[in-house]
Amino acid sequence: MGILTLLTDFGVADYYVAAVKGVALRLAPGSTIVDISHEVAPGDVAGAAFLLGATVPWFPDGTVHLAVVDPGVGTSRRLLAARLASSWAVLPDNGLLTALLDRDAVESVRSIERTDLFLQSPGQTFHGRDRFAPVAAWLLRGESFAELGPEVGDPVRLPGERPRRAPGLATGQVAHVDRYGNLITDIPSDWLPAGSCAAEVEGRVARVRAASYAEIPDGEAAMIPGSLGTIELSLNRESLARRWGVPRGAAVRIGWAMSVTKR
Amino acid sequence: MGILTLLTDFGVADYYVAAVKGVALRLAPGSTIVDISHEVAPGDVAGAAFLLGATVPWFPDGTVHLAVVDPGVGTSRRLLAARLASSWAVLPDNGLLTALLDRDAVESVRSIERTDLFLQSPGQTFHGRDRFAPVAAWLLRGESFAELGPEVGDPVRLPGERPRRAPGLATGQVAHVDRYGNLITDIPSDWLPAGSCAAEVEGRVARVRAASYAEIPDGEAAMIPGSLGTIELSLNRESLARRWGVPRGAAVRIGWAMSVTKR
Amino acid sequence: MGILTLLTDFGVADYYVAAVKGVALRLAPGSTIVDISHEVAPGDVAGAAFLLGATVPWFPDGTVHLAVVDPGVGTSRRLLAARLASSWAVLPDNGLLTALLDRDAVESVRSIERTDLFLQSPGQTFHGRDRFAPVAAWLLRGESFAELGPEVGDPVRLPGERPRRAPGLATGQVAHVDRYGNLITDIPSDWLPAGSCAAEVEGRVARVRAASYAEIPDGEAAMIPGSLGTIELSLNRESLARRWGVPRGAAVRIGWAMSVTKR
Repeated sequence: MGILTLLTDFGVADYYVAAVKGVALRLAPGSTIVDISHEVAPGDVAGAAFLLGATVPWFPDGTVHLAVVDPGVGTSRRLLAARLASSWAVLPDNGLLTALLDRDAVESVRSIERTDLFLQSPGQTFHGRDRFAPVAAWLLRGESFAELGPEVGDPVRLPGERPRRAPGLATGQVAHVDRYGNLITDIPSDWLPAGSCAAEVEGRVARVRAASYAEIPDGEAAMIPGSLGTIELSLNRESLARRWGVPRGAAVRIGWAMSVTKR
Repeated sequence: MGILTLLTDFGVADYYVAAVKGVALRLAPGSTIVDISHEVAPGDVAGAAFLLGATVPWFPDGTVHLAVVDPGVGTSRRLLAARLASSWAVLPDNGLLTALLDRDAVESVRSIERTDLFLQSPGQTFHGRDRFAPVAAWLLRGESFAELGPEVGDPVRLPGERPRRAPGLATGQVAHVDRYGNLITDIPSDWLPAGSCAAEVEGRVARVRAASYAEIPDGEAAMIPGSLGTIELSLNRESLARRWGVPRGAAVRIGWAMSVTKR
Repeated sequence: MGILTLLTDFGVADYYVAAVKGVALRLAPGSTIVDISHEVAPGDVAGAAFLLGATVPWFPDGTVHLAVVDPGVGTSRRLLAARLASSWAVLPDNGLLTALLDRDAVESVRSIERTDLFLQSPGQTFHGRDRFAPVAAWLLRGESFAELGPEVGDPVRLPGERPRRAPGLATGQVAHVDRYGNLITDIPSDWLPAGSCAAEVEGRVARVRAASYAEIPDGEAAMIPGSLGTIELSLNRESLARRWGVPRGAAVRIGWAMSVTKR
């Protein structure tokens, strides 16, 4: 049986994650379940979309990725199943697919209308357990994607600009702040030419370039080619997010040739 | 091999959870291990009992549920194994079975006296590793429940009243506060008739009824049929527990016909 | 396929843990993955070394333990693979092996030089995913340990004194503070003779001896033979670490015959 990943905002102090896993193991016995994270802030669809986009590429073919950050649970928002390059995603239609769509990683999206697959459990508040888990199990068992429902051409996409580049300048945003306080931008590392440049976020500037955290001079902010192929702004053994007080979503400008700070 | 769930107050920053899993995998190779939660507050038997009762119904037949919230570890408190409808529980005799007993989900309880199964490890402080894990592995291997020890007719039950109903009134308590700040009561959703009613907790009143969080008007407290078959009190995208400052255990009254607030 | 344990400082809110698991499952399909902890404080090599030493003995033969607390990622620090009594460890050469070396649990250490095994992923910041996970998968698949690289005689060892004993006195340190606030020392429980003794840490004294937490008189600090074979200092149902304000690393003296407090 296949691999199921779980990405939710359920936390790990309630019965929610376990109930989803119990249902999945009941309906797709022998599956291997891997937690991506359950520490998405409640209702933070954008945060979860980032994590989903970052994680999917590393999993084996055939993996089913179940993402449930679903403040609209119980309303008429659609339930989606998506065929990715070599895996599947099951999630509410609220923007969770955005990062995968941005990466052109989504081949086909269907609206799940197989109500016969759903559990008849109490309440309309826990579709993760009652609807999404059974559909994920359906795919884990190798059942038909096409039979889940009709194709959908307009999955919800979160607003937001893609990173851009102009001569001597790249602009983007802080896509994620990680546990170490690294500011992970959406600016591709290979946009930067060799040589000196500077990154600016909310008036703060990083001028150092480094390949690893350990080579950053103490206390200096640096640009590093990160593990997702984008530029990170970082300190060595210290949180840059805390030092600068910069949140996710902040605009980032990286300039070269003419300095970014020459205004 | 079967499925083992774990519910503890160990947290996830120590070696305790991993040691239990290592022993289980050593003695019952190939088992699938699922965490219910390790974030039960230290010694919070009542909180763990709720989670155990909520989780058990969703797991496949034959699952072994190991619950270790055990402030009496090393004393003469009994170690119990319980046969549930289609699964097993292994836990200290301190009230952890209460929610399952309340649901009539317990078919037989035995006092574990097979000291030959226990590990001879250092100390008397970690029965989760040395005693409970080997017994769980015994059951995972399909060995005899009856041979674990004599039947027990009086497992410890936590004090507390069951929800009650009278004409126009249901009373109960806040059984759990979840990550979203929903107040999960023990009052069955199907006790409430259609039509208007009001819920009161510590002088705070919810008058709205809703089927989903998203349909609750902003800032209003609502009664929702929850995922465990009981009424939840909730706000839309905000924590009602924080807004009202209401803790677990608070008394809840839901009235209809004559309003609960007419005193 | 075998068992892989993971011990990192990645936390559980990023994509890092899942990416490592995805790579491991891709390269060693069917492996069982067990989290030791991801809540090691960022860069806390000593804390992770303790957890690794504590966990390894409880796992089945053939387990591969992957530990990534790696502030030097991307620098020239070596990547190590170690053959333990009946299992394997894969980790950066920064002291993570210290507790296992202290226990004489390490049979052979090799410097990983099989760059052909590494993933060609973006950046030099995530060797857990790109280098360590593929090497762990190599061992999980039963491939040759010896072919990973040359033997190493000098793995990095964290500084620090081993516990010592003299007539009537044992000295050591607080090796770990657990979730319950127990001060876990490195002083072997069997060094203490029967009879009265006293433990002193930063001017605070524990005089009670107990076998279990529950038998400690309320509010008194006690010495308990802990689950790792060393003495713990504990309160009953309360955190001694918080009460005393004592951190990891604090010096511990336990005296008997002549009281430790007679100076």
